[in-house]
Amino acid sequence: MPKNDNDPWIKIICPSITPPSLKDNTADVDRLIRGVRKALKTEEVVIDYSLIKRIPSSLREYGYDIRPVLYETRGTWHLVDLFPPQDNNKIFGLSVDLGSSTVVVRLLDLITQEARDETSFLNPQTEIGPDILTRIHFASQKGGLERLQSLLVERLNEEISLLSKKHQIDTASIVGMSVSGNTTMTHLFLGLEPFWICREPYIPAVNRVDLIKASDIGIGINPESPVLVLPSVGSYFGGDLVSGILASGMNHQKEVSILVDVGTNAEVVLGNSEWLMACAGAAGPALEGGVAGMGMMAGPGVIDKVIIDTQSREFRIRTIEDKPPVGICGSGLIDLVAQLFSAGMIDLRGKYVTGRCGERLREIDGVKHLVLVFSRDSGTNEELTLSQTDIDALLRSKAAMYTILTTITNMINVSMEEVRNFYVAGTFGTYIDPGSAITLGMIPDLPIETYKPLGNSSLKGASMALLSSSARDEAYEIRDRITYIELNVNQEFMNHFSAAKFIPHTDRSLFPSVKEWRDS
Amino acid sequence: MPKNDNDPWIKIICPSITPPSLKDNTADVDRLIRGVRKALKTEEVVIDYSLIKRIPSSLREYGYDIRPVLYETRGTWHLVDLFPPQDNNKIFGLSVDLGSSTVVVRLLDLITQEARDETSFLNPQTEIGPDILTRIHFASQKGGLERLQSLLVERLNEEISLLSKKHQIDTASIVGMSVSGNTTMTHLFLGLEPFWICREPYIPAVNRVDLIKASDIGIGINPESPVLVLPSVGSYFGGDLVSGILASGMNHQKEVSILVDVGTNAEVVLGNSEWLMACAGAAGPALEGGVAGMGMMAGPGVIDKVIIDTQSREFRIRTIEDKPPVGICGSGLIDLVAQLFSAGMIDLRGKYVTGRCGERLREIDGVKHLVLVFSRDSGTNEELTLSQTDIDALLRSKAAMYTILTTITNMINVSMEEVRNFYVAGTFGTYIDPGSAITLGMIPDLPIETYKPLGNSSLKGASMALLSSSARDEAYEIRDRITYIELNVNQEFMNHFSAAKFIPHTDRSLFPSVKEWRDS
Repeated sequence: MPKNDNDPWIKIICPSITPPSLKDNTADVDRLIRGVRKALKTEEVVIDYSLIKRIPSSLREYGYDIRPVLYETRGTWHLVDLFPPQDNNKIFGLSVDLGSSTVVVRLLDLITQEARDETSFLNPQTEIGPDILTRIHFASQKGGLERLQSLLVERLNEEISLLSKKHQIDTASIVGMSVSGNTTMTHLFLGLEPFWICREPYIPAVNRVDLIKASDIGIGINPESPVLVLPSVGSYFGGDLVSGILASGMNHQKEVSILVDVGTNAEVVLGNSEWLMACAGAAGPALEGGVAGMGMMAGPGVIDKVIIDTQSREFRIRTIEDKPPVGICGSGLIDLVAQLFSAGMIDLRGKYVTGRCGERLREIDGVKHLVLVFSRDSGTNEELTLSQTDIDALLRSKAAMYTILTTITNMINVSMEEVRNFYVAGTFGTYIDPGSAITLGMIPDLPIETYKPLGNSSLKGASMALLSSSARDEAYEIRDRITYIELNVNQEFMNHFSAAKFIPHTDRSLFPSVKEWRDS
Repeated sequence: MPKNDNDPWIKIICPSITPPSLKDNTADVDRLIRGVRKALKTEEVVIDYSLIKRIPSSLREYGYDIRPVLYETRGTWHLVDLFPPQDNNKIFGLSVDLGSSTVVVRLLDLITQEARDETSFLNPQTEIGPDILTRIHFASQKGGLERLQSLLVERLNEEISLLSKKHQIDTASIVGMSVSGNTTMTHLFLGLEPFWICREPYIPAVNRVDLIKASDIGIGINPESPVLVLPSVGSYFGGDLVSGILASGMNHQKEVSILVDVGTNAEVVLGNSEWLMACAGAAGPALEGGVAGMGMMAGPGVIDKVIIDTQSREFRIRTIEDKPPVGICGSGLIDLVAQLFSAGMIDLRGKYVTGRCGERLREIDGVKHLVLVFSRDSGTNEELTLSQTDIDALLRSKAAMYTILTTITNMINVSMEEVRNFYVAGTFGTYIDPGSAITLGMIPDLPIETYKPLGNSSLKGASMALLSSSARDEAYEIRDRITYIELNVNQEFMNHFSAAKFIPHTDRSLFPSVKEWRDS
């Protein structure tokens, strides 16, 4: 695990500064620097021009008894602000997971290193376009990039303002921020042109950004605060994944681990303390529940678990907050299809078995639909159904997922059995039932305990990097160490893919634990 | 002498940057940094956020064949700008001597390291007040500091614009600037409150400022250019003197040197390659010619040399540009009084000897005046006269000068004979006749060749520091090495001062070369 204890790169200190006299008429700024150097035991202390003006009056106001806040970068400490002398000065930081749909903000106490609160909001850029590509295209219109950036920054500032009021803290005492997101989101946050990200050969403006001042991008915290943007590897491998690796600790382990993040794309990292390989492929939307007719993001009334009695074929469903069902999320969908297979209601090609589905099956516009919730039980007063098309889409996605995993392990000559930890990032990882995913043949047939949900690893990694200089350095090391493999979608890949479209796979020996339903 | 050849800290380079491809999809900024690192043979290369936005389009515009300009500070190279591919890219810098009355600007070719032009203008802050104290007081009024800063910066920008037009260069190709001035001038240039400079215990806001971006203070050159402010030692020992020491090279010599700068104060530095001591005292105005009734700054028609025939007591005067005489400058005044003494027209107390002055002497309002130029010969159609009061003031100033020199050498236990070089800075140093100054007992009776005029050493040092990283480092070293001695104006000082008010001194053994006039 990364060292995360007590090596902060943002600090409030209590230097000893003797007031000036005829015998010691060192200038105010030089005097402050001298005190800070002594307190930090380093020569490398810098005060930027933007702060110099205020220093003489601040020092004099508090009789040279002040509490400077500083941050370190490239071995040099920079002043952020001077606080009045108090025994219990508090300083805070924000870590941000910059999702394309949801932005999550965590308020951290930079002294105790504890999380004080966490809040989230819909990324206001979704009003421009729900998907990344629409936003990239919008950005290249006149004023588009500025609009996307300001939508996000203004909404973020509202949230910061609410958080500060709630906890009765001054926004000036928020003295640092870390941001983790995919490469496009990072570009839009920084106001950088994302035009080339989605065009061959897929070149971001920047992968590794140095610290930025909060005031440079208009973030409503202490204007001199450093903003750390978690570095990306490339257009399709962003800081959110570097964060995820950091949060997993896989880069420290001798054994081989896999990290999977399912979003718009499925991103896969394979590696250990010696090497890290990564690739990404289109596998996501169906797995996230975004494609199915009744699919939706997790929320009250959303089905997240389905159990079908293999004998009676009775359905038991669980909804979030036990509200009447309104739709199904990705993990619920995977459960549902796995259960349909186990109950013999779909075959190994995923096709509905008419005889086993009974009254739940009907045809709408020539496509078979299975009723999951009848209208009398539905929160929407309408039937919730799963169409053959939905299943086909899910199987393509799960096949893509499995093929990516197979391809990357094959390329590196690692067998699945060597994988000791299989980390699954995001809400997908939190809610997914690995058993169901194995049943579908989406993920390899490893012991269940191998699967470890990481939760919001993008936010976790960002928080770690904000709190600890070794974790921050590690994020850059991870970035530099990763070898990104462009998946070659050739005939071999397509063969693997075709085989993986079956439940669980044409090669049943790969999934010994999966029992197919047999009419007894 | 400081190494000044070929170690620039501002460079234009020609890195080899391969355009992106599917096999190498490094981001644009990271790609540029990679190329620059290779070209500069260092890992420490940073591109500030303010520049990142422009990089993708700049790189693409020139097909990744570009000429970056970078500057180095604290071991890290920072990008200033990207220039198009050309064989003969020119980059320029400006060194500025920020005098309280005159500002001098030198245009330097940063590639050949040659001076291309030099220009000067009246410091527009003189419209607020000719002296430093008036400006300090004005600065503490509402909006005063901003007014003083903008007066100076706007006038400087006009001059930069004129210089650029004259030499047909784009101001964007001016990529660096160095500024040397006294501590108050530096504060006013940077918009820093000078309030505490003139109040016990005399504390500047800052002595050592890190590099500032031109855009931060509104200088009309490339906005990302570094501005180097020569560091000060304290309120009464500014960057202009640190520059002077750098220009003299006295900090490299084994032998002891003295550096004297006569401005509003007389500042004295004594030292060698091992130690540097400095002090300052009020000695200036009379020496600069500012106090005498007919005193004025050097200019057309100003008397800069006077010879009196010891027998005939005829006066021969020389004026600048041979124009009819209108006044006298500091060096002319020193010549005049020394000649009056040699001709026996004043005695060793500086009092007019009535019998020797003849028709030139008259009494106005009870004070004796000697006519230097009769109205018929005068450029002002009025007599130019030197009053007894003028002489008394000059003798107090020269006594202060000599006492300061005596005091500092005594304190450090250095005898005057050990001093091998006596550098005199500024226009005062350029025009003064050391023989006359010795005759008056203003400076010690050392061999004439010991005295070396430095010219505008503030500008010279600033230019050196802009062109060479070792010279720049040296300026900081000089600053750190100097021990500043507060002159203790006690009884002993006053005794020395009283003895030094005589011409040349009560102790004639100190001035063996000075011959007193004797009636033969």
